Amino acid sequence: MAGSSFGNIFKITSWGESHGKGIGVVVDGVPSGVDLSEQDIQPFLNRRKPGQSRFSTPRAEDDVVEILSGTFEGKTTGTPISLIVYNKTQRSSDYSEIASYYRPGHADYTFDMKYGFRDYRGGGRSSGRETIARVAAGAIAIKILESLGITVHAYTKSIGDVEINMNNFDSEEIFNNMLYMPDADAAKRAEKLIDDKRAQTDSVGGVVECVVSGMMPGVGEPVFEKLNANLAKAIVSIGAVKAFEIGDGTKVAKAFGSENNDAFRVDENGKIVKETNHSGGILGGISDGSDVLLRAYFKPTPSIYKSQNTVNKDMENIEINIKGRHDPIIVPRAVVVVESMAAITVLDMLLLSMTSNIEKIRKFFQR
Amino acid sequence: MAGSSFGNIFKITSWGESHGKGIGVVVDGVPSGVDLSEQDIQPFLNRRKPGQSRFSTPRAEDDVVEILSGTFEGKTTGTPISLIVYNKTQRSSDYSEIASYYRPGHADYTFDMKYGFRDYRGGGRSSGRETIARVAAGAIAIKILESLGITVHAYTKSIGDVEINMNNFDSEEIFNNMLYMPDADAAKRAEKLIDDKRAQTDSVGGVVECVVSGMMPGVGEPVFEKLNANLAKAIVSIGAVKAFEIGDGTKVAKAFGSENNDAFRVDENGKIVKETNHSGGILGGISDGSDVLLRAYFKPTPSIYKSQNTVNKDMENIEINIKGRHDPIIVPRAVVVVESMAAITVLDMLLLSMTSNIEKIRKFFQR
Amino acid sequence: MAGSSFGNIFKITSWGESHGKGIGVVVDGVPSGVDLSEQDIQPFLNRRKPGQSRFSTPRAEDDVVEILSGTFEGKTTGTPISLIVYNKTQRSSDYSEIASYYRPGHADYTFDMKYGFRDYRGGGRSSGRETIARVAAGAIAIKILESLGITVHAYTKSIGDVEINMNNFDSEEIFNNMLYMPDADAAKRAEKLIDDKRAQTDSVGGVVECVVSGMMPGVGEPVFEKLNANLAKAIVSIGAVKAFEIGDGTKVAKAFGSENNDAFRVDENGKIVKETNHSGGILGGISDGSDVLLRAYFKPTPSIYKSQNTVNKDMENIEINIKGRHDPIIVPRAVVVVESMAAITVLDMLLLSMTSNIEKIRKFFQR
Amino acid sequence: MAGSSFGNIFKITSWGESHGKGIGVVVDGVPSGVDLSEQDIQPFLNRRKPGQSRFSTPRAEDDVVEILSGTFEGKTTGTPISLIVYNKTQRSSDYSEIASYYRPGHADYTFDMKYGFRDYRGGGRSSGRETIARVAAGAIAIKILESLGITVHAYTKSIGDVEINMNNFDSEEIFNNMLYMPDADAAKRAEKLIDDKRAQTDSVGGVVECVVSGMMPGVGEPVFEKLNANLAKAIVSIGAVKAFEIGDGTKVAKAFGSENNDAFRVDENGKIVKETNHSGGILGGISDGSDVLLRAYFKPTPSIYKSQNTVNKDMENIEINIKGRHDPIIVPRAVVVVESMAAITVLDMLLLSMTSNIEKIRKFFQR
Repeated sequence: MAGSSFGNIFKITSWGESHGKGIGVVVDGVPSGVDLSEQDIQPFLNRRKPGQSRFSTPRAEDDVVEILSGTFEGKTTGTPISLIVYNKTQRSSDYSEIASYYRPGHADYTFDMKYGFRDYRGGGRSSGRETIARVAAGAIAIKILESLGITVHAYTKSIGDVEINMNNFDSEEIFNNMLYMPDADAAKRAEKLIDDKRAQTDSVGGVVECVVSGMMPGVGEPVFEKLNANLAKAIVSIGAVKAFEIGDGTKVAKAFGSENNDAFRVDENGKIVKETNHSGGILGGISDGSDVLLRAYFKPTPSIYKSQNTVNKDMENIEINIKGRHDPIIVPRAVVVVESMAAITVLDMLLLSMTSNIEKIRKFFQR
Repeated sequence: MAGSSFGNIFKITSWGESHGKGIGVVVDGVPSGVDLSEQDIQPFLNRRKPGQSRFSTPRAEDDVVEILSGTFEGKTTGTPISLIVYNKTQRSSDYSEIASYYRPGHADYTFDMKYGFRDYRGGGRSSGRETIARVAAGAIAIKILESLGITVHAYTKSIGDVEINMNNFDSEEIFNNMLYMPDADAAKRAEKLIDDKRAQTDSVGGVVECVVSGMMPGVGEPVFEKLNANLAKAIVSIGAVKAFEIGDGTKVAKAFGSENNDAFRVDENGKIVKETNHSGGILGGISDGSDVLLRAYFKPTPSIYKSQNTVNKDMENIEINIKGRHDPIIVPRAVVVVESMAAITVLDMLLLSMTSNIEKIRKFFQR
Repeated sequence: MAGSSFGNIFKITSWGESHGKGIGVVVDGVPSGVDLSEQDIQPFLNRRKPGQSRFSTPRAEDDVVEILSGTFEGKTTGTPISLIVYNKTQRSSDYSEIASYYRPGHADYTFDMKYGFRDYRGGGRSSGRETIARVAAGAIAIKILESLGITVHAYTKSIGDVEINMNNFDSEEIFNNMLYMPDADAAKRAEKLIDDKRAQTDSVGGVVECVVSGMMPGVGEPVFEKLNANLAKAIVSIGAVKAFEIGDGTKVAKAFGSENNDAFRVDENGKIVKETNHSGGILGGISDGSDVLLRAYFKPTPSIYKSQNTVNKDMENIEINIKGRHDPIIVPRAVVVVESMAAITVLDMLLLSMTSNIEKIRKFFQR
Repeated sequence: MAGSSFGNIFKITSWGESHGKGIGVVVDGVPSGVDLSEQDIQPFLNRRKPGQSRFSTPRAEDDVVEILSGTFEGKTTGTPISLIVYNKTQRSSDYSEIASYYRPGHADYTFDMKYGFRDYRGGGRSSGRETIARVAAGAIAIKILESLGITVHAYTKSIGDVEINMNNFDSEEIFNNMLYMPDADAAKRAEKLIDDKRAQTDSVGGVVECVVSGMMPGVGEPVFEKLNANLAKAIVSIGAVKAFEIGDGTKVAKAFGSENNDAFRVDENGKIVKETNHSGGILGGISDGSDVLLRAYFKPTPSIYKSQNTVNKDMENIEINIKGRHDPIIVPRAVVVVESMAAITVLDMLLLSMTSNIEKIRKFFQR
């Protein structure tokens, strides 16, 4: 069934395969009157694109975005915005071999089971290239959120066992190293780890953290459309994510109530604040005004040069060595994908929250 | 906006507050012809209900379910099944105090910010009692899944720092101890931990694990309606859950590709199997036929007897001691809630997967 | 699949059968802060209930509504409102006969084809009693719309070939006659027609018209969620409706452009108005500020005493005479159903329209 | 909010404006394994395209469709199919004038009210060109339905007061005349009427009828997702449609029960059939196996050369004469649009109906 749309009010519909004509997304429900051009979107795609560093695939894809609809004289019109990124380098021959077997850790087998066959070229629809659609749509969401005073920032928290030191946290450093880590020292060590693993024909996983600042309280809909629930869906829908955390995440299972509760306090401006933020900015599924804090755990790239056992289409047990170009680590390029999915979700739920209270509705429609 | 429905084909709509007239759920999209009576549902509610042990609240609620519609002569008719559980003990006076302040770790503050006021009695809609609706609907989903050869089982994996030993795993033990742990020894140690923490007027968190066995491959819809993505939403929508894992979960971030990939193999029956199951039964968002394995991390009960700082409605910083009856641990009663939400999600996506392939559709409609 | 929910932001979920325990509806997405009690809903149900006149079934049902959730201290809390009307008179024995054959014009046959069997008592889920859910939910929508300056009024426009004379239109008359006609003279003639047809053991159809006044322009979402498209779905989902019109309706097919176009004009208050309203208040799927005008065409009651040919479950061609109590006309009791569905749709789309423009969104969230 | 998607399982998402870069549609939920190329879609677009006859605009648009994703080696893969039709002739200068005023009968005014401004070029998003997306998606739906033994055929039933004579009905004639009328004589008279009206600088409306044959019983979901309800939404969402009928339509209001009921009968093959089809193939919202019969009433083209009164953006009352190229009749080009929307709806609901009965589900998943 149709599974390529996400969101309610701000709704994205994604399409495209790794080696088809392109990847695209229709962003529907964008409010009218937002200044928007390709220049607002391209920088986000540049953060995702391959070939940025020696840790990402050397394919020289450009991933240039084009707006096909939904703007007029530089502003959004309220109608759907269609975005397209053409696939440029399509060396399908590289993939002729993988047509004949199931790559471990990939979706080859499950696509065959579900659909009867698959577009095997570069993983087809299950390729990481589908995240182009998420990032292009996310750029629009981020721009709108920023105009409402809300920022969304993601970065690499750890790669393998190399974790950033929060005491060294430097938000400017994020864009200084190729791993999008806010800690130069950790970035160096992580680079070495990746180099080592690549030399061993292996790959490595990692963690992306994302912070949404400037949130107003009141966003999120009990009991199933909670802000955290939709963030969980958004993040876990990203390929290779195997765990999702909000606030203190897994740590809460070992914490005591007296540690985990965030005390409320009236601050010097007469505003209610929380003294800590174990909750990650969400209580009862509704934003509490603190930073929304989430983490995505990425598995190591499944495509590795090392020998692996698998099955071919003649139902024989075989040993394979996957050729072709692939990153030894997914995480750096996934940072902007996490940021995008978080932004899309937050914006959608923020728009949904406008109808919670009759007094605010009456005021809105006052004539 | 409307946030009380979950699912597409098998869709549940929940209603009710802790101290209102009752809690209910409309289960729509139940196929016709399923044998169903209250006796199929009540045992699941009994696993959730309070007062089962010294670790749960001593309220003598019965939580008796009644089917109001959707069955005829003992079978489902295909029309919506309305289920109701009346609230029996409503000592609202217990809650008069909490009307005046915001309990840390609860949704009091965010409900006020969102809606302007709140039904403060027992937490109102944000009370754990809303999970009655999830469990009642889940019982139906579980029954249907079982008739298709699929089982869903959850249990307590850890409480605080007491974790089950997988070598001691005994599925029959789950229902022998009051903590729903499949390891009698761990259960004993966990009971002690809870006793200690309660004596210290504190509370403790834990982890619930859930296994879906007998899944056919092919369930889940790329790219946003992945089986794991919807499970993440389902599980994180449960109050107090702060992290979600599928398969190896957070561990994948420190694993290498050669460790994390599950090799395929043709087994002695000529069937394709995976040699390991790091993926947790899902590849590319689609079930791969292995067990689906997920975990939910629960925070400690926010209601504690210990003194806490907060704010009252006169905007004063105050210190409170929450009275009333509350469990020192959420986890044991949440086991069946996790099981229910997993079942609801799996069933919904399984039904959705029926339309993936034209040959199967043609065969279905063959006249 | 699940087909018992309607709406997006203001979403209703209906359940119940004619001879089950009751009929109910969960109204989710009701904004918080609306004064609401059973007294706001009951008068609408009274307009729908049977036994009001000699033209409706003599069953002494009371159809008393009870609010089970979603209000606190007389106000909506923003959480789902569960409404229930218990079925009182359940003389199932009356219906034992119809279990054995398919009534012409009823859903007996299609329910059996779809579900394999059916709850035949009084039509089960396909009974007109399901409209209780629509009307109860509609009463809430109407109350909210009125607080925003919008009124929704329906009335009987014609019964058989007896049509109201628009020159005699008297809105107060609507509640003076048992047919809800705004023209006393037409009502008298229609009553005679119905009496005649009943004497002939036959039944008669008619037309309900509905006017939504006070609409702001800008409500409706191109291109598929147009206001008129959703009104069409809402109205045609009512049992027995076979045609839907907006504005001039079927007449437009014979009109010329110069007649059908509504000229715009700046009125004496400097406001843009239309000189006519052939469009029925909607242009391009979006409300234009004029009255929204729609009509529903109802077929004659399919249950008639006259002999009819049909098939029994032994696959024999038989002749039947349906016994039991049934109205010779559906229309009068359906007036409030049309009103309700129109109101639910308009309110839902009005709430959806709040997110159309970034300037209004910014203003809403101004901190 | 997002209003550019239609359908649940088979879901289309439309984008594009009259004078933007193109019109497109993402068709998601297409089952895998369907043979599909541009040649399956282009003939449908050719039936819609302008310049086919002297009654349609002389713009030499080609409306060539391109498949951008979702097929591999000539078959659908189960992933979203992105279709694009580039806009070729964009003489925006033609429309400079209409930027300054509101055209009667058009969406200019309502778009401005909703969005604050509009893409005025050729009507922007509210242009009839958006139906390209409907037709391209409809072609896929029709192909799938045909492989299941279901055909969907639409034709012009009347233009102005010229109606086809059902006794002269000739399905082959439909494609022989430029008005898609199944009656050569009526077509000639209608052509004359259109010529006359155009000479009078006026325009004319008409009726499109659509027949779905080969339907299996059991399709449609009570009580809100009835087949007729979704058809109503689908058809009324087409610009210029002001009325929708199913089966006997408006006539039922004047019919008696004994006339309107369709008697059931066991035919010579032992199959249950209806002796008549007043119901239009749907009872209780569910297909009954007879032909589904619906009608759409189109208003006359609102763009006329005749002088009209309206308002300009300086809020002055003015008289206008709309220049540019426009058809004096919408109907002929809308025939294929009605056919497409009917097919999309029927296919979506047919797929949804697969989950109605547990026995059929069990059989489907039998392992």
